[in-house]
Amino acid sequence: MGLRIAIVGSGAVGTYYGAKLAHGGSDVHFLMRGDLNEVRRDGIFVRGEDENFRVAKVHCYNSTKEIGPCDLVIVAVKATSNRDLVDLVPPLFHERTILLTLQNGLGNEEFLAEHFGAERILGGLCFIAVDRHSKTEVERYDYGFVILGEFGRPAQPRTHEVGAEFTRGGVKCSVRDDIALERWRKLIWNIPFNGLSIVAGGIDTAAIVGDKHLRELTRALMNEVIAAANKCGHALPGDAWSEHMKRSDKMAGYKPSTLQDWETGKPLEIEAIWGEPVRRAAAAGAKMPRTEMIYELLKQLDRKRQSR
Amino acid sequence: MGLRIAIVGSGAVGTYYGAKLAHGGSDVHFLMRGDLNEVRRDGIFVRGEDENFRVAKVHCYNSTKEIGPCDLVIVAVKATSNRDLVDLVPPLFHERTILLTLQNGLGNEEFLAEHFGAERILGGLCFIAVDRHSKTEVERYDYGFVILGEFGRPAQPRTHEVGAEFTRGGVKCSVRDDIALERWRKLIWNIPFNGLSIVAGGIDTAAIVGDKHLRELTRALMNEVIAAANKCGHALPGDAWSEHMKRSDKMAGYKPSTLQDWETGKPLEIEAIWGEPVRRAAAAGAKMPRTEMIYELLKQLDRKRQSR
Repeated sequence: MGLRIAIVGSGAVGTYYGAKLAHGGSDVHFLMRGDLNEVRRDGIFVRGEDENFRVAKVHCYNSTKEIGPCDLVIVAVKATSNRDLVDLVPPLFHERTILLTLQNGLGNEEFLAEHFGAERILGGLCFIAVDRHSKTEVERYDYGFVILGEFGRPAQPRTHEVGAEFTRGGVKCSVRDDIALERWRKLIWNIPFNGLSIVAGGIDTAAIVGDKHLRELTRALMNEVIAAANKCGHALPGDAWSEHMKRSDKMAGYKPSTLQDWETGKPLEIEAIWGEPVRRAAAAGAKMPRTEMIYELLKQLDRKRQSR
Repeated sequence: MGLRIAIVGSGAVGTYYGAKLAHGGSDVHFLMRGDLNEVRRDGIFVRGEDENFRVAKVHCYNSTKEIGPCDLVIVAVKATSNRDLVDLVPPLFHERTILLTLQNGLGNEEFLAEHFGAERILGGLCFIAVDRHSKTEVERYDYGFVILGEFGRPAQPRTHEVGAEFTRGGVKCSVRDDIALERWRKLIWNIPFNGLSIVAGGIDTAAIVGDKHLRELTRALMNEVIAAANKCGHALPGDAWSEHMKRSDKMAGYKPSTLQDWETGKPLEIEAIWGEPVRRAAAAGAKMPRTEMIYELLKQLDRKRQSR
């Protein structure tokens, strides 16, 4: 009695979690583009600590029409491609289809709710360091757990049903009643680390936590995020930064996703990770001077990169 | 009855003002290194709006011992080379030699006072866009005026005497009683423009004032400097930013000196322009989050540049 699942977005995150779900026995259907033939032929290889497997037979398709209606649609495209979803997703819907976004930053649930109705929407947060080495290979470096919740509602039976699919696939998954709070909690990490990794000249997490001054700057940014979250009505405790810092201290040097995107010339999720938090904070009267500065610098650096 | 003048530091600023003084009839002696033979042979060419002249016979020397005692020593080396001055300058002194620093940022008068006695020290601020094209050529793009003052004292007769030398050389020069205040006033420009030109990816002043958001960020940085100056006891009016913004709007796109240094692989005056203001502000209880962030980013970018 599992869910029929579609994965829209086959970057590192979509491929990894889709493969885990399929490996656990879920009925998973991938939307793919250029990768289709190679994945059909070779399957998907997943590597990581304590895991090393291949999904030999991957159901993958060229269009969402071919996939047809599903019970759960997992959105794992970059937030910068959200517009594409408007036409792409509807063929996957039946009346009670759940739409789960595993995207970074703020504003994704709202975007999907606006176009497809708020009642369908679930939000998920992926705590994972993962890289896609080729069309058929992903490697997980660290972590991997997922936090799930309903958009604007406490958890429902269906939320736990989705959580159970992940758990069966070997993904540590916890269901929460307030996913918006968890999104802000995750930004405590993404806003400083994804940002500084680029504006400080292309450095990894170890270089940031290992430098006394960049570490202080990271702390200052984390405090801005916590204060802004509180002003926006999401009660993060004042010491919510400490778990993030501890986790980063233990991690091997890792290039945050935005730095990976920067180095490979891909679009940066600037609005979701920095723009939207800055706008919400400003509307609520919270000051985020350092975050705002990273936001402006990233936009400028990105424009310069594109004009090259 | 002119002053015997030594110029220590023959980058764009030292060469330009030294040539202006010599052209006006002052008795100017340049300390030079690799440039000596070419300048002896060809002289110095100066170009700029309404000026275009050559100083044919330049007194230049390999060592300060050869120059010997002077009435006025003008320091125009980068603040990053201040340590070198400790051994370099003393042969230029007689009992009443005046030591004028034309360097950028904060802390230079203090450094010189510590090593050579506070009573000798004058500070000068150069408002100029100037570039050195070769060992024998400088071009002034904009402005050129100088503000002079005593270190920690109001203007004296000798301050006006020094001012008169500049005026005779065709340099607009005004003598002020509070040079420390003027240094902070100049930082209102240097802190945002020199900083953003680098951390935003190598852009000129026109790109900064021409972008709505970078312009707002510039304003926010300017406000930080004004507030910090006031906390440090230097009464800059709240609208002191506006003259700088107007001047920048009128200027053709110009690469601030620090960006020029960055692009040519020269040392950056990070401590004088950002580090020292940030430290003084912190000691006085003023917050400069954006300035501090530029400071930390520049240090990191500079380390990365040097490790390449």
